[in-house]
Amino acid sequence: MLDSCLFVIFGATGDLAQRKLYPALYNLLIEGRLPEDFAIVGTGRRFETREAFINMVDESVSRFSRRKEPLFKDRFHRMLHYFRMDFANAAGFARLASFLTKLEETLQSQGNRVYFLAVAPEQFGPITEQLRSNGMVRYSPDTWQRLMVEKPFGRNLESARTLNDKISALFPEENIFRIDHYLGKEMLQNLVAIRFANSLFEPLWNNRFIDNVQISVTETEGIGTRVSYYETAGALRDVVQNHLLQMLTLTAMEPPVNLSAQAIRNEKVKVLQAIKPMTPSEIRVNVVRGQYAAGTSEGRAVVGYRDEEGVSPTSTTETFVAMRLFVQNFRWAGVPFYLRTGKRLARRSAQVIIEFKSMPGVLYFETEPRLRPNLLVIKVQPEEGVALQFNAKKMGATEGVVPVRMDFCQNCELPHNSPEAYERLIADAIRGDTTLFTRWDEVEYQWRFIDTIIKTWQDTEPGFPNYEAGTWGPEEAEALLRRDGRRWHIFD
Amino acid sequence: MLDSCLFVIFGATGDLAQRKLYPALYNLLIEGRLPEDFAIVGTGRRFETREAFINMVDESVSRFSRRKEPLFKDRFHRMLHYFRMDFANAAGFARLASFLTKLEETLQSQGNRVYFLAVAPEQFGPITEQLRSNGMVRYSPDTWQRLMVEKPFGRNLESARTLNDKISALFPEENIFRIDHYLGKEMLQNLVAIRFANSLFEPLWNNRFIDNVQISVTETEGIGTRVSYYETAGALRDVVQNHLLQMLTLTAMEPPVNLSAQAIRNEKVKVLQAIKPMTPSEIRVNVVRGQYAAGTSEGRAVVGYRDEEGVSPTSTTETFVAMRLFVQNFRWAGVPFYLRTGKRLARRSAQVIIEFKSMPGVLYFETEPRLRPNLLVIKVQPEEGVALQFNAKKMGATEGVVPVRMDFCQNCELPHNSPEAYERLIADAIRGDTTLFTRWDEVEYQWRFIDTIIKTWQDTEPGFPNYEAGTWGPEEAEALLRRDGRRWHIFD
Repeated sequence: MLDSCLFVIFGATGDLAQRKLYPALYNLLIEGRLPEDFAIVGTGRRFETREAFINMVDESVSRFSRRKEPLFKDRFHRMLHYFRMDFANAAGFARLASFLTKLEETLQSQGNRVYFLAVAPEQFGPITEQLRSNGMVRYSPDTWQRLMVEKPFGRNLESARTLNDKISALFPEENIFRIDHYLGKEMLQNLVAIRFANSLFEPLWNNRFIDNVQISVTETEGIGTRVSYYETAGALRDVVQNHLLQMLTLTAMEPPVNLSAQAIRNEKVKVLQAIKPMTPSEIRVNVVRGQYAAGTSEGRAVVGYRDEEGVSPTSTTETFVAMRLFVQNFRWAGVPFYLRTGKRLARRSAQVIIEFKSMPGVLYFETEPRLRPNLLVIKVQPEEGVALQFNAKKMGATEGVVPVRMDFCQNCELPHNSPEAYERLIADAIRGDTTLFTRWDEVEYQWRFIDTIIKTWQDTEPGFPNYEAGTWGPEEAEALLRRDGRRWHIFD
Repeated sequence: MLDSCLFVIFGATGDLAQRKLYPALYNLLIEGRLPEDFAIVGTGRRFETREAFINMVDESVSRFSRRKEPLFKDRFHRMLHYFRMDFANAAGFARLASFLTKLEETLQSQGNRVYFLAVAPEQFGPITEQLRSNGMVRYSPDTWQRLMVEKPFGRNLESARTLNDKISALFPEENIFRIDHYLGKEMLQNLVAIRFANSLFEPLWNNRFIDNVQISVTETEGIGTRVSYYETAGALRDVVQNHLLQMLTLTAMEPPVNLSAQAIRNEKVKVLQAIKPMTPSEIRVNVVRGQYAAGTSEGRAVVGYRDEEGVSPTSTTETFVAMRLFVQNFRWAGVPFYLRTGKRLARRSAQVIIEFKSMPGVLYFETEPRLRPNLLVIKVQPEEGVALQFNAKKMGATEGVVPVRMDFCQNCELPHNSPEAYERLIADAIRGDTTLFTRWDEVEYQWRFIDTIIKTWQDTEPGFPNYEAGTWGPEEAEALLRRDGRRWHIFD
C-alpha cells in the first residue's frame, strides 16, 4: 500500500517533463503503480489554464509513451493540476504552498510530497531556498517530502558541494533522489542480478579471470537542442562523470551485505574510492578527448561540432572521451577498465563488455593463434540483453575453432514491454527506495576523479576537431588499447 | 593429399550400409573429401549384378542423404563395385582377394584398404580370420589396411576380449577403428573444443563449482527392426556401455597434453578407470532398469515391449536404464553423474547438462528461495547447440529474479549443413585419424563397469513392465535424484 502524495514538478512545460515524466507517470498509472490518492502538480509560466496544460500532457503521452491505452485518460486528467508561477518571484512560492495545502485537504492526503526539479541547474539552489522559507518541507514523523533532482549535479566538486549543502540543509539524505537515469535502465539493474544471482559468473568476476572491462555509451546524434548546456559541459561532465562511472561501480562492486539501498551504495562508493588517481602526465597518456568534424552520420552529411548552431567556431568542448583507469583493490588490481563515450559516432549503443583472459598457450591456443577471447556483453541499449561470445568447433570441419555467440535478448520480442528508466525512478521515489539514485558521497568521489582531468585539460589546447562524424572517434582512442595489445569490441 | 584406397564393405546390402554408409560416402564425394583414386566395393549375397547394387545405392542416397546434388551421380557410380559372395564360404574370400588386387591395378592404387564390417557381430571373428588366411592384410611399410568395426563390440568383457584378440592379432591398434557413432556427432566433438578453447568454462569445470552432471540419450521410438539383437542386448549394452560412457569421458576428462588421438584417448581411459566400482548392493540402489508397457507415443497408441513382434511375452530385457555414478578423482570427487537412456520416452534428445552449484544462501538466494541453478546444456541431437540457463531480473519488476536462457544453435538455420556422424568417421578412417574411435582399453574398462551391473541384475527378477510408453521412465528413476534433493532437467 503506497502512501498518498502530491507529485510537484518544477519545470512542468520543459523538454524533460514532456518527453519523460508524463509518459512515465501515465505508464505507472496503467500498471497500478501509483498511490490511490495521488495528484500531479505542474508549475511553470507558460500556460494560463489547466486545460492548456492537460492538452500538452496529452500530446506528450501520445508522442512519447510506450503504452497509450486511452482507458486511463480520464483518471489521468483528474490527477493533473497546474499552478502558474515564475520561479524568480518569491510571492509565487507562498501561493503555491497554500495551493498544495488546499489540494491535500481535498485529496485527504497526508502532506507527503515529491518535488521534482526539471529545471536548469542554476535554479536548483533558489527553488530549494524557497521551499525552505515557505515551510514546504516539514519535519513531521508521519509525513515525508522528497526531492528528485536531475543532472547535472554541479559542474565540478566545488559547485556540487555548494549545491548539496543547500539541499541537504533542508532534506535528509534518504529524501534526496539524485537522478542518474542510467541507473533506471533495466539492464543496469540486471547487472546486479546477473552478478549475484548466478553461481556461474561470480567465481570468474575478478583479476584472475578477467583481462579487461570495456564500458561504452556511444551516440550517433549530435548535440541537438542542448547547445547552451553542452558547450559548457562537454562529454566528460555530461556522460563520464555520471553514467559511465555508475556503470563502472555496478560492474566492479563487491557483493553487498544485503540488497538494501544503503548496502549497495556503500559498495558502489568503495569502487569510486578505489579508482587510482592519475597525475597530469598520466592523464595525458590515459585520457583521450575528441570533437567531431563534419562527416556522414546514418547515411546523411552532417556538420562538425563547431558549425552546429549556437556553438562557438573555436569551441574546445569535447564531444568524445575515452579513458583507461584502474580500480585499485584486491578484486581488480591490474585489470584495465576502458571507458568510452561520444557523439556522432558510428553506432548508438550502451554496453558493458567483460573480456576474459586467454587460456595458457596450449592445445587450441597453440594451433589457433588467432583464437578470440571469451566475452560477456551486457547490452544496456538500444537492445537490452546479454550475449556471450565463446569458441566452438567449426561445423563440419575436422579442425578449426570459430567464435560463436549465445544471446539472451530481453526486449527483442516485446520492445514496448521494457519500462523506461523514469518509470522505475519515479516509482522508487514514491516508494522511498533510494537504491537507484546517487548518494552524495558517490557524487563527491565522481567529481573528485573528474576534476583532476578537467584541470589537466585546461592547461593544454586540444587539437580539435579530431574525428570525423560517423566514425568511432579519434585515432588516439584506438591507440589507447592497441598500446596494451587490446582492441575495442563492438557488438551488434 | 589423401592416399588412394579401396573401401570394402562387408554387409553392403544391409540396413546400416543403406542408411548410413552410402549417403555418407556420397556427401564426402560432393565435399571433395575422398581420395582421387578411390573405389567402393560392396560384398554380399543379395544381388547378381553390379547394376542392381548401384540401383540400391542410388535409392539409399535419394532416401537418406542430406545432400543430393545429382551432378556427382556419375562419378559416384564409377566408384561403385559389387562382389557377390557368401561369408561362410572360404573360397569366396580367395576370389575376393584377387578381385581387389585386380581393381587396385586398374586404379593404380597402392594396396591401401579400409575394410568395413557392417555385419552381425557373430561374423566379426570369421571375417577377420578369412582376411588373415587369404593374405588380405599385409605388413608393408608403404601401404595400410584398416578395419572399421561396428558395435556391439562383444556382449561382455570376456567376449569383447576374445573378439579383440582375433582382430588385434591381424591389425595393429592404430589400424583398428572401433565405431561408436556418437563420437562422430558434431556436438560431442564440440564438447572438447568448448571445454578447452574457452577460458570461461575450464575454471568452473570441477567439483568446487559443479553440483552434478546429467547425461541423457532418450528416444521416442520402440525397438523397430532390431528385435533379435535388442532382445539379447538391452539398453545397458546398447547405449550405456558405449554412447553414455563415451559422453561421460568427454565431459569429465582432464585436458590432454596435446590434441592427438593418443593423448585424448589416454585421458578418456583415465576417466573410465576412475569410475567408482559398485558392490551389488550399491548397484541395486544406484542403477534403475525399466521396460515399457503400452502407452501413447507422439500422439498414437503403442504396444508394450513384450507385445512387440518377435519379443518374448516374458522378456526381461530392459528398455530403460538410469544410474548414478561417481568419477573418483581430484576433479570430480563428490559430484554425481546421472546417466539415463530409454526407448519410448517422452521426447527424443541427447544432451549433457552441467548443473552448477548454488551460491551461498545470501542476497538473492535468501529472498528468492526457489532460485534455479545455472545450467550449461550441450545439445547433441536432434538440435545441435549450447544453451545456458541463468538468472536475471524480472523485466519491469522492482524485485524478483527469473531463469532465462541464452542459446547457440549450430544446426537450426541450416540443419542439412551439419554432417552426419558417419561422414566424419569414414573420412577419419581414410585419413588414418583414430581420435573419434574407441581404443581397446576404453572398451575394456567400459565392459568391466557394465559387467558388474549385468551380473547383479541376473540375480533378481525385474518387475517389468514398469513404465508407460511416452513417459519419462519408471518412477524409481525420478526417486534416484529426488533422494539427493535433485531432479532431472529437460531442455527444449
